[in-house]
Amino acid sequence: MPSNFAIAVHGGAGTISRALMSPERERAYHQALEQVVQAGFEVLRHGGLALDAVEVAVRLLEDCPLFNAGRGSVFTHEGRHEMDAAIMDGRNRSAGAVAGVRNIQNPISTARRIMEHSDHVLLAWPGAEDFAREQGQAFQPDGYFFEQSRFDQLQEARITNTVQLDHGSQPIKVKKLGTAGAVARDQHGNLAAATSTGGMTNKRYSRIGDSPLIGAGTFADNHTCAISCTGNGEYFIRAVAAYDVACLMEYRGLSLEEACRIVVHDKLAPVGGEGGLIAVDAAGNLALPFNSEGMYRGTQTADSPLVTSIYKE
Amino acid sequence: MPSNFAIAVHGGAGTISRALMSPERERAYHQALEQVVQAGFEVLRHGGLALDAVEVAVRLLEDCPLFNAGRGSVFTHEGRHEMDAAIMDGRNRSAGAVAGVRNIQNPISTARRIMEHSDHVLLAWPGAEDFAREQGQAFQPDGYFFEQSRFDQLQEARITNTVQLDHGSQPIKVKKLGTAGAVARDQHGNLAAATSTGGMTNKRYSRIGDSPLIGAGTFADNHTCAISCTGNGEYFIRAVAAYDVACLMEYRGLSLEEACRIVVHDKLAPVGGEGGLIAVDAAGNLALPFNSEGMYRGTQTADSPLVTSIYKE
Repeated sequence: MPSNFAIAVHGGAGTISRALMSPERERAYHQALEQVVQAGFEVLRHGGLALDAVEVAVRLLEDCPLFNAGRGSVFTHEGRHEMDAAIMDGRNRSAGAVAGVRNIQNPISTARRIMEHSDHVLLAWPGAEDFAREQGQAFQPDGYFFEQSRFDQLQEARITNTVQLDHGSQPIKVKKLGTAGAVARDQHGNLAAATSTGGMTNKRYSRIGDSPLIGAGTFADNHTCAISCTGNGEYFIRAVAAYDVACLMEYRGLSLEEACRIVVHDKLAPVGGEGGLIAVDAAGNLALPFNSEGMYRGTQTADSPLVTSIYKE
Repeated sequence: MPSNFAIAVHGGAGTISRALMSPERERAYHQALEQVVQAGFEVLRHGGLALDAVEVAVRLLEDCPLFNAGRGSVFTHEGRHEMDAAIMDGRNRSAGAVAGVRNIQNPISTARRIMEHSDHVLLAWPGAEDFAREQGQAFQPDGYFFEQSRFDQLQEARITNTVQLDHGSQPIKVKKLGTAGAVARDQHGNLAAATSTGGMTNKRYSRIGDSPLIGAGTFADNHTCAISCTGNGEYFIRAVAAYDVACLMEYRGLSLEEACRIVVHDKLAPVGGEGGLIAVDAAGNLALPFNSEGMYRGTQTADSPLVTSIYKE
């Protein structure tokens, strides 16, 4: 009997207003999330690795203009795209990550190459691009990443001199949400996590958020859980949010759900850490807590059908 | 009665061979460490903040060519200096960090400016330098960072195509040590940590190590401890080493010393995570464990005199 394999994906958390969301747009998000979950789940169903499932899922999220990662990345202050990504293998805690890379089609796959073909965990900027080129990773011209609605967001944010959360109706200072990620548990009991993001609209100063930081936005260990976060990155960094879930499980003996609730609702929410995370534990249990209005998300397990959601249930 | 204030500093851990260390050089290290501890301790003795004490101490470590940080930073593959630093305030877990910055005299002070004058935690590369310039931080020409012995290390490492640990007698592949840091507990019970590094000789691809990553190489929270790590950065990142010490204390109820021993000797050492860390807890207890041959270090507390050490006791 195949054991409890499971996958969860997210396409960012934030202020997702029903009033501003057209039925067509909502349908497009559900369809995209469905395809992403399906692709990852197929890997698991055929006995593939959790690591492969999360990479496949995040590559699709990166290729879809609806999500703030890869092709759909938001614009920086300078009108460019600087992308961050991380992947972690729960079998041995190996990890790879990139920060501030430009023109790479799938930063998550570059992160995986760093994990498997270098002595390093985190490479950044032109050096990371050099490494990606040497590894034969696909690059795309600036036009590939151009999306009119994102560009309009930048103009608005520039005028109001704010940084802008991706899924917000208004530019709101200090809020910087919008990320894509996946976590999975395969039939062999392995866990993996992957996260990818374009950061926030109008970001400056080569800011790095929590997504590429192991323990903050991304973490996986077969003994505890796999986690991918989305939200106000700076709060997740200072909370060491992803690893905190694992520690509450390992050192306190809490369930995945309890540990996630404490981190997202008791620790992050009171200090302004808006957002959420997706999580899977060694038994294949899933948790998808968020303290924002919505989080684009989808799940499928060996026992339960594919579900995609945007708002609170 | 003033409470248990205390400071600990380190100037890197690694293979420090007595045979290759001249008495003059050893004396120079002790003298430098002494001055650094004294400067930080004076801040504490006069009732100053732990945050100010660790910044003062790390600035001096950065200004001293003996240590791999600031002025004494090792050369990258391209013959440049790319520096990383982080600072964290245990009062509210605020934090600031820089990665890959060039020509900034005191990266630790830029990290503090990021903490206090931006909405961000981690800035990198030219963006971080732009921010530093806007904040009036001191810059130095390349010549300021030139040190003949470091340059010779690079030539040797280039010929042998290795990356080189800073305090090693031989270029050894995959080992990348050499960092500077400080932790302190002030008279008011506040904790703080600061870490700064030039990374490893002959490093490429804009690699970022554990030093600027909150939870990996640097962490502080008044409720548990303040930590600054030095060693094989990639292992410390995957172990989320600094925050793991805090979690073992908070969630398991371990003492600072027990928690540090588990992380450095039971978790990091068996998987190749060579190095050490310095730590202080809310009661002013200090711990300075390392699993390498030596660690440049110094301590002083309200009750105990200034001590500096290099090798195991």
